[in-house]
Amino acid sequence: MRTYLECFPCFLNQALRAGRIATNDDSITKRLLDEIGMMLKEIPMDSSPPETGRLIYKKVSEITGNNDPYKEIKRENTDTALELYPALKKKIESSNDKLLTAIRMAVAGNVIDFGIDRKFNIETDIADILSRDFAIYDYDEFKAGLTKADKVLYLGDNAGEAVFDKILIEQIKKTVTYIVRDKPVINDATYDDAVHAGIDKVASILSSGTDAPGTVLKTCSAEFIELYNNANFIISKGQGNFEALSDEKRPIFFLLKVKCPVVANHLNVHEGDIIFKTANLLNR
Amino acid sequence: MRTYLECFPCFLNQALRAGRIATNDDSITKRLLDEIGMMLKEIPMDSSPPETGRLIYKKVSEITGNNDPYKEIKRENTDTALELYPALKKKIESSNDKLLTAIRMAVAGNVIDFGIDRKFNIETDIADILSRDFAIYDYDEFKAGLTKADKVLYLGDNAGEAVFDKILIEQIKKTVTYIVRDKPVINDATYDDAVHAGIDKVASILSSGTDAPGTVLKTCSAEFIELYNNANFIISKGQGNFEALSDEKRPIFFLLKVKCPVVANHLNVHEGDIIFKTANLLNR
Repeated sequence: MRTYLECFPCFLNQALRAGRIATNDDSITKRLLDEIGMMLKEIPMDSSPPETGRLIYKKVSEITGNNDPYKEIKRENTDTALELYPALKKKIESSNDKLLTAIRMAVAGNVIDFGIDRKFNIETDIADILSRDFAIYDYDEFKAGLTKADKVLYLGDNAGEAVFDKILIEQIKKTVTYIVRDKPVINDATYDDAVHAGIDKVASILSSGTDAPGTVLKTCSAEFIELYNNANFIISKGQGNFEALSDEKRPIFFLLKVKCPVVANHLNVHEGDIIFKTANLLNR
Repeated sequence: MRTYLECFPCFLNQALRAGRIATNDDSITKRLLDEIGMMLKEIPMDSSPPETGRLIYKKVSEITGNNDPYKEIKRENTDTALELYPALKKKIESSNDKLLTAIRMAVAGNVIDFGIDRKFNIETDIADILSRDFAIYDYDEFKAGLTKADKVLYLGDNAGEAVFDKILIEQIKKTVTYIVRDKPVINDATYDDAVHAGIDKVASILSSGTDAPGTVLKTCSAEFIELYNNANFIISKGQGNFEALSDEKRPIFFLLKVKCPVVANHLNVHEGDIIFKTANLLNR
């Protein structure tokens, strides 16, 4: 997905939120905003928003001196999710369609996102999403693809969300490689976060090599790119990965909650909608 | 009121909205955003937001070549308000406290504001505000001051709102000077807009000399400043005038709807609240 004009005020908002979390010194955050302001003119409209997100969060680290402002928030989110885990597993066991319920839980986990400005209450949001209709729903294609696949490449998103991803991975019953960011960026899952969520018990964990808040291929490692190019079944979690990969002609299933009006317009759905969409259908 | 860090993304948003109204050419609006981005570092935190608003809307004119992007919108708003006028006058006549109902109508008129991003439905908003409590309510001080005043200085805000202001002016029964912006800025009332609203029938109309979206004193004319300094009763409409004058120790009554979280925080009220506040009490 390209950058829209509406992304520009949002870039400044993202820097402001991250700056406020990284430092209590408003004069430092002001300097951060000044620098992001001057950066805007260099942003190509044909780049994807996470490419700019990468530059923004680099500036946050550089100017505030804090390389991982969301460290505690990520840990708290994961701990909260881990507390919910037993109850969620019970729900799966009593469900008619265990795979579908696990998919719904994986998208419910996507509400944990401090990169976008919204208050959230995790338990009510989960209950809401477990009972909601998907705005785009390619479940049949997903099942057909999964049956044929031997391995699954699973692109993680936020740290706390990984606990919910674990539930889906357990239900998929395939060999899964779980992909994390190489370095801390917003509240996205890194290797340590994925281990803390227990992903190492059900999948191998690999870094994509990127420090962008999305799988921006040109910033990924050769090792990941090879794995990605050879994968015949890819699950992509969250908006950042969607923005980075939406134009790809690969067997990707995007599973996300739509968290901004730009992505909503791009997909012709509403903000807040939940999406379960194949990449191929997207470009039909 | 000073500039807060949260104002910076909003400045970019204001430029984007005005750019989109002034031109259909996204590449021009992109250039506008680039320029506003570079301007951010020059904005002093102790300036009031309308001082920056002034610079933003100058850039909008300069880059889009459109000096009055809101011209048609202003006319449509005023026409809509004029259609409502007879019904609103009837409501006043059947009211127990005619002055208070007229004040409520004047603040209801303040919902007409395209400078802030929100969808609005004028008729339901008016009905809502006519029945709502003020979050800050200095009506007794207002009545006491008005009784003693011989003349009233009335600082207008948006174009369509002037029709609602006319209702209050008719109820005040004093000699009123209605102050407008010197040049078009957002949808604020200029001399022509005030005449179109019928203000010339009930008050003399004078420009403050400013082209800012608020009565930024350092940009006002000597003629206005003299009038302002000698006034013993001033009604200030809207958020832009509040932001520009909130630190003044003058007999000002601020009448506005709170349209952004920054002003809400500054006043310790909620976004969407309606305010009827003396300047003196504010600084107690």
